[in-house]
Amino acid sequence: MGKDIDQLAISTIRTLSVDAVCKANSGHPGAPLGLAPAAHAVWKRMRFHPKDTKWINRDRFVLSNGHACALLYSMLVLYGFDLSIDDMKQFRQVGSKTPGHPEALDVPGVEVTTGPLGQGISNAVGLALAQKQFSATYNKPDFPICDSHVYVFLGDGCLMEGVSSESSSLAGHLQLNNLIAFWDDNKISIDGDTNVAFTEDVMLRYKAYGWNIMEIEKGDSDLDGVSRAIDEAKKSTNKPTLIRLTTTIGYGSLEQGTHGVHGAPLKPDDQKQLKAKNGFDPEQYFVIPPEVTEYYNEHVQENLKQYSEWQQLFNAYKQKYPELGAEVQRRLDGKLPADWSKILPSYKPSDKALATRKLSEMVLSKVLPAIPEVIGGSADLTGSNLTRITDSVDFQPPSTGLGDYTGRYIRYGVREHGMGAIMNGIAAFGANYKNYGGTFLNFVSYGAGAVRLAAISHHPVTWVATHDSIGLGEDGPTHQPVETLAHLRAIPNMSVWRPADGNEVSAAYLSAIESTSTPHVLALSRQNLPQLEGSSIEKAAKGGYTLVSHEKPDIILVSSGSEVSIAVEAAKSLTEKGFKANVVSLVDFLTFDKQPMDYKLSVLPDGVPIMSFEVLSTFGWSKYAHEQFGLNTFGMSGKAPEIYNAFEFTPQGVADRAAKTVQFYKGKPILSPLNTAF
Amino acid sequence: MGKDIDQLAISTIRTLSVDAVCKANSGHPGAPLGLAPAAHAVWKRMRFHPKDTKWINRDRFVLSNGHACALLYSMLVLYGFDLSIDDMKQFRQVGSKTPGHPEALDVPGVEVTTGPLGQGISNAVGLALAQKQFSATYNKPDFPICDSHVYVFLGDGCLMEGVSSESSSLAGHLQLNNLIAFWDDNKISIDGDTNVAFTEDVMLRYKAYGWNIMEIEKGDSDLDGVSRAIDEAKKSTNKPTLIRLTTTIGYGSLEQGTHGVHGAPLKPDDQKQLKAKNGFDPEQYFVIPPEVTEYYNEHVQENLKQYSEWQQLFNAYKQKYPELGAEVQRRLDGKLPADWSKILPSYKPSDKALATRKLSEMVLSKVLPAIPEVIGGSADLTGSNLTRITDSVDFQPPSTGLGDYTGRYIRYGVREHGMGAIMNGIAAFGANYKNYGGTFLNFVSYGAGAVRLAAISHHPVTWVATHDSIGLGEDGPTHQPVETLAHLRAIPNMSVWRPADGNEVSAAYLSAIESTSTPHVLALSRQNLPQLEGSSIEKAAKGGYTLVSHEKPDIILVSSGSEVSIAVEAAKSLTEKGFKANVVSLVDFLTFDKQPMDYKLSVLPDGVPIMSFEVLSTFGWSKYAHEQFGLNTFGMSGKAPEIYNAFEFTPQGVADRAAKTVQFYKGKPILSPLNTAF
Repeated sequence: MGKDIDQLAISTIRTLSVDAVCKANSGHPGAPLGLAPAAHAVWKRMRFHPKDTKWINRDRFVLSNGHACALLYSMLVLYGFDLSIDDMKQFRQVGSKTPGHPEALDVPGVEVTTGPLGQGISNAVGLALAQKQFSATYNKPDFPICDSHVYVFLGDGCLMEGVSSESSSLAGHLQLNNLIAFWDDNKISIDGDTNVAFTEDVMLRYKAYGWNIMEIEKGDSDLDGVSRAIDEAKKSTNKPTLIRLTTTIGYGSLEQGTHGVHGAPLKPDDQKQLKAKNGFDPEQYFVIPPEVTEYYNEHVQENLKQYSEWQQLFNAYKQKYPELGAEVQRRLDGKLPADWSKILPSYKPSDKALATRKLSEMVLSKVLPAIPEVIGGSADLTGSNLTRITDSVDFQPPSTGLGDYTGRYIRYGVREHGMGAIMNGIAAFGANYKNYGGTFLNFVSYGAGAVRLAAISHHPVTWVATHDSIGLGEDGPTHQPVETLAHLRAIPNMSVWRPADGNEVSAAYLSAIESTSTPHVLALSRQNLPQLEGSSIEKAAKGGYTLVSHEKPDIILVSSGSEVSIAVEAAKSLTEKGFKANVVSLVDFLTFDKQPMDYKLSVLPDGVPIMSFEVLSTFGWSKYAHEQFGLNTFGMSGKAPEIYNAFEFTPQGVADRAAKTVQFYKGKPILSPLNTAF
Repeated sequence: MGKDIDQLAISTIRTLSVDAVCKANSGHPGAPLGLAPAAHAVWKRMRFHPKDTKWINRDRFVLSNGHACALLYSMLVLYGFDLSIDDMKQFRQVGSKTPGHPEALDVPGVEVTTGPLGQGISNAVGLALAQKQFSATYNKPDFPICDSHVYVFLGDGCLMEGVSSESSSLAGHLQLNNLIAFWDDNKISIDGDTNVAFTEDVMLRYKAYGWNIMEIEKGDSDLDGVSRAIDEAKKSTNKPTLIRLTTTIGYGSLEQGTHGVHGAPLKPDDQKQLKAKNGFDPEQYFVIPPEVTEYYNEHVQENLKQYSEWQQLFNAYKQKYPELGAEVQRRLDGKLPADWSKILPSYKPSDKALATRKLSEMVLSKVLPAIPEVIGGSADLTGSNLTRITDSVDFQPPSTGLGDYTGRYIRYGVREHGMGAIMNGIAAFGANYKNYGGTFLNFVSYGAGAVRLAAISHHPVTWVATHDSIGLGEDGPTHQPVETLAHLRAIPNMSVWRPADGNEVSAAYLSAIESTSTPHVLALSRQNLPQLEGSSIEKAAKGGYTLVSHEKPDIILVSSGSEVSIAVEAAKSLTEKGFKANVVSLVDFLTFDKQPMDYKLSVLPDGVPIMSFEVLSTFGWSKYAHEQFGLNTFGMSGKAPEIYNAFEFTPQGVADRAAKTVQFYKGKPILSPLNTAF
């Protein structure tokens, strides 16, 4: 390792990062300055292809302290990814490829979207988990087609967040030795010295989680130490590694070592003296010395050689293991098995009434054997979520005797937020993983931080969210979702299915598994529901459709999930009273919204009063219905039918309100809520 | 300690709990059976008054594993709280005082609502924090008017949840030696043996947090061990205590030691053999031997003596320290200082444009000196949330030199979920605490699990949620809330204020501080906003009011927060085009909803098209507006004004859509969305 050129490279990273933040007059220079040496040393050890950023056998780099993104963008520019110095000059500007926190969707080479603290390290656990599962499934003797590592930088904030505690504990349990994390121990957070709130012994805590722990005292300069630590970490056979890297935040700035340099640009004088100190012309900006470009290019060339060797290896693999090879190739191409959806069960009205969570299990029992990239688990509610099928093998370290790394069932423990972030990481690994996680709908909220990042990042993950209403009964208000669907439906790019019967459950899974860029929540009942007359996978796949139809209806009841069959009963009783009531099942708002307007207006037309019915918050339903019947208080503990009775969530209660609605709108011209002025 | 009577008491707890679960045919017998000895031993050491359950100097008991509530209800019945054996017979039934998880609101003696795992232990940290703050503030030499302890039972699930990691780390940092927690180490969770997902070294982890750790190996029988552990814990001068209590889940059941006994009633035969094994008649139910009643009553009598001594002490305190005594008495009476609200600042249109987060700081600078029960902090965003005023003293262990226990500013670290649960605990302590916590609005979502429990439990806590939209600018989509207000507004009993200027900020604080049963979120801008013509504290206090008024308006623009001033500009430009546009500021949906219908219809009347404008998800706005203008995608990273331009969130963009709205509704009869059929 040539010392001068290393130092020059590090200075280049530092000045590039600082110039970007100063030009934007916004951003975080402190961590990039402190972490530049480590980034330099780590990336030199990494395997990647700057132009094929989806290469399955690349090492992954996760910047969990995402506010330090100027550092990451600098690395991507210097290593010749599809990010230019001009992009750096547009740092934090509207429409740029260099947003204020790293976004995987927009920036090639950014593995996962980070910034919300604790997510990146947890995504990294998911990446490492997927890597283990993929390699255990497909590697063969002499054919290590996947043997990559996951590198993470994380800060104090990431370590304080509970989500990282959850995922780190699980990573230790799962013995993910392919995970190498560097804690930027700079003793500064936004409130100042970390000693105001964070005085725990982090290394002891990670030891307690079952991690391998190491320390690099001189993180500002000890490049060999970083490299040696990586060597050491790679020797670990059954533990992830946390390396405590003591650094100086804002290294080289006049404000180094203080929180003043964390989240605000350097002042012009400081910027200049820093550049001079680093041997750069203070009056020149965004300078990359050619010898640095050349130096990094040498490493790229080594990587391209490895890339080409891997291609040969994979070709030979496909020769020797044609079936597995074709499967891997299919997955790398992002294609599902041909005609897979034919396995989805369909139902007739005469079929048995079942809980949609049970119907979900029945779909999984078809899907799991047919699609190897479907993997999933539960946050310690397996028997309630029904997310595990009989033949499942647990994803576990073989030494535990509880499963092995080819296992496709993940025991997440009671860790919903960690599960959500790990699910995102599994999706980000690639190889077409479609992964799901089970919990009660109410506890998806615990993972809200990860849920919105799935939507931002276009991860096709699926939350199997059972016990989706007061219908869960005795567990009571603390477990009964009320606001949860409103929350999830308000998230852009979030598909929230609440199926009413078996056909609709199949349609929900069709959407979830075919999805490449939209996360799904499947809200499923604890209680049994009848198979509906008039439902079909095809109709439900439109997100909303007319289940009970009349020529000129007096009213339309629009409903979802466990309430649809009640609405059907209400419609019958209304008919007896001379009112013609259509029933619409609105399974997923997002999918329905995407249908052509004429279709949507055929379901919810002008001229007819529309009343929604769902035993959750009515919030948001006025988008589709003139009147809303639902639950705008918390639920109660009791037998489900008695709770429904108490709130009048019965055919009679629905019919009464429907009759009032018809009366109220009599003689008034009625516009469908779908009609809008702009 | 008479061994036979202790054993009989424990058997009584066990059989009562089992009978309740069996009669309900629903519930969790396992943990009550395993924890009955510990509960018996702990409660014998506790100070409380069964009829004055709000006595400020009581010890608190928190059942963090809330599913074990049959145990807690048994203790309350046996100790003569306002809960009867008949209530036990109604376990988990609609309308009963014994819901499926303990609810503080409904059951006297239940300190905090638990069930969602990890919350109880975190609430307990808040209780312990409040106890420290209260006692440091008011205790005087020879007048220990508050010297209570907080006892907690928690299970494996609580320990797996990240929220408990956050709060436990902070409890260690804060050296809360008044907190004594018992970990029910029964090695079983819903997925079976905890070794499927939870193999970390818990005790080592808590040691890393700075806790005092102890073990009781024979938790099924070692009553003296529990008592000795409590003695030992009470000696701790600077550490909370975690006691590992090894127990057998479902002790005495035929299924003891398995997850079969966790969440399902015992089978009738098992119930009978268990009762026989405990020396009870298998054919009799809900039996309390008189000697057990008498035995527990002895402890109650001791407690009543202490209660009476405390009353004398407090009376003497009031004599000796009349000013402080009156203050304590006022707080215990749940009254704020008289006329406190006069200190709230009001503003004229000529006053300087300021960010509402800054205006919030200005309110806090008035409120904090005037109201000692207002305490608060931030999740490591103090300088951004502006939640700390110049003279604040940090709540810190004196040994740190960073503050002391009378301090009213809490450094929560980057721990939003922990903060939310601790805030709930502080509120639950009593003494009229009105506590707040700051973070970015987007990261309130991290604490969603605690937020909904605040609403269920009627805790008057306040989230100071700054950076409330894309207006935060460069940090980008990962930090810009979109769905967040829809989520919060859909929570029953949640007041969500989004003030537009200084007067509205004062109104928001008026509501928050006067609140006794409704949690508040104050959504505040990062960017400066003008002081509005026509706003006032009084008007804003109605939750919504007409800011710009015309006799017969052509359109009403209803808006909130940072968008109101844009709507006012749009209204001006519409006037120039000959349209009369009213502007309504809808500051808080919940407060507005509570106004009389005629007032509401005066603001949003029939006959006028209404268009909402808010730079967040439009989801839910159709409740008040025929048309919605807002953000139904994620935001972007860039300068705030440029982002607003990119989405056309400008006076021009609003006016254009308003004109389209007027056009669209021309000639159509228009009903206010407030009119409903039922």
